[in-house]
Amino acid sequence: MPQMDPRHAILFDTVTIGPKTLPNRFYQVPHASGFGSAKPLTHAAFRAVKAEGGWGAVCTDYAPVSPDSDETPAVASDCWEAADMHRLGLIADAVHEHGALAGIELFHGGASSVNGESRYPRLAPTQATAEPQYASMAKEMTLADIRRIQGDFVTAARRARDTGFDIIYVYGAHGYLMTQMLSVVTNQRADVYGGPLRNRARLPLETLAMTRDAVGADCAIAIRMPAASGRELPGIHDEELLEFFAMADSLVDLFDVNVGSWAEDSGTSRYFGEASQLPWTSKVRAVTTKPIVGVGRFTSPDTMAGVIRSGNFDLIGAARPAIADPYLPAKIRQGRIDEIRECTGANVCILREEKFSHVGCLQNATAGEEYRRGWHPEKFTPARDPDRSVLLVGAGLAGLECALVLGRRGYTAVHLVEAEPEVGGKMRWIRRLPTLGDWGRTIDHRVIALSKQANVQVIRGSRLTAADILNYGAELVILATGSRWCGDGTQPHHLGPLSGADRALTPEQVMAGQRPPDGRVIVYDTDGYFVAPGIAELLAGEGYEVHLVTSLDKISPVSDDTLEGDMLRQHLHDIGVTFHTNVAIHQLDAGTVLGRSAWGESWTISAQGTVLVTQQRSDDTLYRELLADPSALAAAGIAGVYAIGDAVAPRMPSEAVFDGHRLARQIDDPDPAAPALWVRERPATAQPTSLHAHGLAT
Amino acid sequence: MPQMDPRHAILFDTVTIGPKTLPNRFYQVPHASGFGSAKPLTHAAFRAVKAEGGWGAVCTDYAPVSPDSDETPAVASDCWEAADMHRLGLIADAVHEHGALAGIELFHGGASSVNGESRYPRLAPTQATAEPQYASMAKEMTLADIRRIQGDFVTAARRARDTGFDIIYVYGAHGYLMTQMLSVVTNQRADVYGGPLRNRARLPLETLAMTRDAVGADCAIAIRMPAASGRELPGIHDEELLEFFAMADSLVDLFDVNVGSWAEDSGTSRYFGEASQLPWTSKVRAVTTKPIVGVGRFTSPDTMAGVIRSGNFDLIGAARPAIADPYLPAKIRQGRIDEIRECTGANVCILREEKFSHVGCLQNATAGEEYRRGWHPEKFTPARDPDRSVLLVGAGLAGLECALVLGRRGYTAVHLVEAEPEVGGKMRWIRRLPTLGDWGRTIDHRVIALSKQANVQVIRGSRLTAADILNYGAELVILATGSRWCGDGTQPHHLGPLSGADRALTPEQVMAGQRPPDGRVIVYDTDGYFVAPGIAELLAGEGYEVHLVTSLDKISPVSDDTLEGDMLRQHLHDIGVTFHTNVAIHQLDAGTVLGRSAWGESWTISAQGTVLVTQQRSDDTLYRELLADPSALAAAGIAGVYAIGDAVAPRMPSEAVFDGHRLARQIDDPDPAAPALWVRERPATAQPTSLHAHGLAT
Repeated sequence: MPQMDPRHAILFDTVTIGPKTLPNRFYQVPHASGFGSAKPLTHAAFRAVKAEGGWGAVCTDYAPVSPDSDETPAVASDCWEAADMHRLGLIADAVHEHGALAGIELFHGGASSVNGESRYPRLAPTQATAEPQYASMAKEMTLADIRRIQGDFVTAARRARDTGFDIIYVYGAHGYLMTQMLSVVTNQRADVYGGPLRNRARLPLETLAMTRDAVGADCAIAIRMPAASGRELPGIHDEELLEFFAMADSLVDLFDVNVGSWAEDSGTSRYFGEASQLPWTSKVRAVTTKPIVGVGRFTSPDTMAGVIRSGNFDLIGAARPAIADPYLPAKIRQGRIDEIRECTGANVCILREEKFSHVGCLQNATAGEEYRRGWHPEKFTPARDPDRSVLLVGAGLAGLECALVLGRRGYTAVHLVEAEPEVGGKMRWIRRLPTLGDWGRTIDHRVIALSKQANVQVIRGSRLTAADILNYGAELVILATGSRWCGDGTQPHHLGPLSGADRALTPEQVMAGQRPPDGRVIVYDTDGYFVAPGIAELLAGEGYEVHLVTSLDKISPVSDDTLEGDMLRQHLHDIGVTFHTNVAIHQLDAGTVLGRSAWGESWTISAQGTVLVTQQRSDDTLYRELLADPSALAAAGIAGVYAIGDAVAPRMPSEAVFDGHRLARQIDDPDPAAPALWVRERPATAQPTSLHAHGLAT
Repeated sequence: MPQMDPRHAILFDTVTIGPKTLPNRFYQVPHASGFGSAKPLTHAAFRAVKAEGGWGAVCTDYAPVSPDSDETPAVASDCWEAADMHRLGLIADAVHEHGALAGIELFHGGASSVNGESRYPRLAPTQATAEPQYASMAKEMTLADIRRIQGDFVTAARRARDTGFDIIYVYGAHGYLMTQMLSVVTNQRADVYGGPLRNRARLPLETLAMTRDAVGADCAIAIRMPAASGRELPGIHDEELLEFFAMADSLVDLFDVNVGSWAEDSGTSRYFGEASQLPWTSKVRAVTTKPIVGVGRFTSPDTMAGVIRSGNFDLIGAARPAIADPYLPAKIRQGRIDEIRECTGANVCILREEKFSHVGCLQNATAGEEYRRGWHPEKFTPARDPDRSVLLVGAGLAGLECALVLGRRGYTAVHLVEAEPEVGGKMRWIRRLPTLGDWGRTIDHRVIALSKQANVQVIRGSRLTAADILNYGAELVILATGSRWCGDGTQPHHLGPLSGADRALTPEQVMAGQRPPDGRVIVYDTDGYFVAPGIAELLAGEGYEVHLVTSLDKISPVSDDTLEGDMLRQHLHDIGVTFHTNVAIHQLDAGTVLGRSAWGESWTISAQGTVLVTQQRSDDTLYRELLADPSALAAAGIAGVYAIGDAVAPRMPSEAVFDGHRLARQIDDPDPAAPALWVRERPATAQPTSLHAHGLAT
């Protein structure tokens, strides 16, 4: 049995925050999930599994106190009515069942609200400097507005206390109303709420005091606030933020500190390493004796223990690392360090919760699936018939994940056969793209886990034919053969074929070492995510004059959904990559690339070489060959043939992991290939369900 | 009493479709609302009021039959489980109460699905030619996939019949799965579902036949399909579509015909006039004897009657005109033609349902508010104290709407005082921007309505001071003083001040007749909606060399949300407007404009003049002056001072209408200025509510 490293014991000290005591130093800071008060049972199960995995405090999504802080289309933990609290209380209850404290992050979005569903005016400290949305400006708050919002905070805090929450936040970070008040750019008021810092700090300080008066005897009062404005919060000086912490010191029981805007605080691993906020957040210690929690995408217990020992933080805050591994604290406590599923910093969680109102994770396929699909990150339904032998062909992410879950479900003979000498599929080269190294954690975690899974045999360097598969002796066959970037000139968006495509390289050819001639190279992107920028940066770093051309209306739009678009484009520009948007290339001649603008005009550029990041296609030859001959399958004793991952459809890597996981969980179903329904939370006209009925609350 | 024009009587004939009979020829075609099966009571009330207003058939949102047709973040009428039908059945019941037929539009999105919530692969006829989404490709359907989807259609159809729906669609239009199958671009299959038209038509025809076999004896079977591919459905020939209608003739009871992609079918009034689809949709009559319903943003009963008399259509289809005026049929029947609230074709409905999951309307402030706020488009709660006199200052859209609703609520003395000689506020000049003429219907409707409202007095050409207002003798004062485009160089997005702004014109100055010197003019846009493109088109039409420069990453991004972005940009390009995106201007010198790119590089252009479409600011001077002296208000006997519309915050015109309407509805509330909560539909853990409890179902 592994044992906890004694150097990590400090992480399991109890910590007192006001009237409450945390069982250890692991603190899941508030973060959005897409569940809010819209999917309360889904939400409760998502948070509960973190408490179960050892997090000493677990917080909700951001929780708007007023109906003019409406985040639609994003989903928040709305705290507008008593009935909202009843739903959110399920979260507190579920978290308490595992001995953790429950926190709720009360806030008002101010000018950052959308108010598309509510249709109320957005409120801002100052109209003229509030950002427009949908070509619309915000209302400059009157004193009556300010009083009303403060009253809404107090009402929500009382309800939150009565519903069982232990930690009540006044949310001051990420550019919402409290931050807008602090900034001399967004707050240009002439009254007592504008001007010198004391005035700009008045709204958060008053609101803290009122909240403390209302519930401070029963609950710990926290504020979340940046220790530095970073690059994206204009008009806030770092020194003033430290002054603010000092001014708030007597009003709070816990400081939740971070840096900059959301895009920096939840910075992707491209540009933000572990503990990258410390140079700023560590300064808070000098101005307060109150407990401090800070984040930094911490996944290393040595780093965490060091941060605590340094005295900078009292608690290790985490959002993304707790999504990637809800059992991170338990694994440290049990000395199972090598089993930690480390966050990749890809921000798929954020893309999913913002765009689809349902969080997910590149590393953890069960994130967000705890209630609706009944998946637990560490527990697995035993195989119905464990002696059915399984042959998995292809050890990319989908194959690795599927094999691992089949192994954990107790299948006694799982063979994972990979044609290449190394496992990992396309992630083998993706991790070698500049700035994407941490994505490789997806492979590393699974390789280590499979090395401990005796019932799964990983066979490398063996390329199977359909005949090989028929003769293999497996009862179930799963094809995880991945996909390839096309070099044949097919491109999406109905742009027609691309002639002369044989003059170009594919991303895979570049990553296998092929290079265009020296000089100017065109990287042509119709994909819109990380591959084209990665190839562009790689080649620019080698001295090529890189032109990134895209048929889309911006460079890498998908990266906006992972919060990294602006930084990515700035970075590419800074290293000398030239952008051409709204251009579709249709012909590659010797030395010349011919295209057309989105508005029908001819476009041309001279170039020595081209890389086509145009389209991926599934490598499903084996799957089709096998399906085409049912009698051969029957004769071979093969009961089922399934495809997973990119062999089905090339998708984001997170969805390949999900797909492999899903099939392994559902392979005992009557039709494992069909899309199964999940448990859906419905409006009140339907029958109620409960977390207990689903077997997840205990 | 007005009487129906006898020429319109033909619109009230009954029409038989299969086993069902429509009470008249008014047919609300299926359209999205943002409610789907997520807000069933809201949805039922929204549809019911149309049946009440005389529409002979009322249909739901699009209704996906399979969980791999998941539209998240858009909300659809999911038909995945029996419990979904229970919720959707509320709509059928509510529609039946008013004697109309209820239709449901079953469909599968195929490659156009998002599947972000479900996480299942998107399905396509052919992988290589399916559009990517989020850098992900679709799965090419196997025969098993096709069979399963057909089974899902049959299951959903049976459930829909059992729940009370009268008309069952197989949705074939707008680029979803059935359209994808018909297109030689998206369908390049080598099996019996690809190749010649007979094969490409096989999936819709088989699905129609199976649906008809299942429920055809009880329900009318309809298909929605374009009669022409328009400009945006590649790979479908118009002649083949007519062939398809002929092939489907024996399988359907009703053809619902339109043209092109959604952006063309719901074409904005910029580029699509009333009945603009007729040149194509009228051709369907030649190939079928079955009833035909077609759309064309019909608001003129003469046009409607003409279309019926021509024999081209049997039913007048409408989505947007029925949102703008649910009582359109009743008003025609009662000869109240001049009371019809005509659709402006601005597509605010689509922006709102797509971005905020809650439909709304520029003309009809009650659209989508029937259940949650209890607003009926034609019925008004009587004033609690009708003799309180009301002074409304400013007759823009907010003031006009507020005065009208106060009048309808029975306030006996409402004075609407406008400083200018004409009412309409900024909409007076917006309607004169090129292609936006139909937006002026917002003014025309209200001017006519107020002319019949004897208790509302409209006073033009009278500019009131604060002292005038205090002396006016009104008990309630409502400021609707609007907003202005700033000429002072303030710009949003933290771009800093713009020096030399006094060299530039504002949009209002241009619309008042001022012009830059001949030559090159820069229209600088940080607003992103219709004003800058309108000014650019106006000046280009007068011979200026127009450069449209924006700090945003595309021209008019908000227009994408109204489906007109691509057409707008193409149109501006075609008339010679040059685009510069990602450029922030910071200085106007004589003959030179200086800016900076989003990536920090200097940018400059020579120009003879500049128009700044940078920022609007509320004209709230009167409001602030009055609020600043509470004792003067008390002495004047003024019990309440409120602001509405752009005087609060410059917003989209639809929100000004909403704001004026809201205050008039809620002015008897304890605090009419505070954002009131609406009735929210909650997940099942909360208390159930019902349509009847809310008093809206009867």
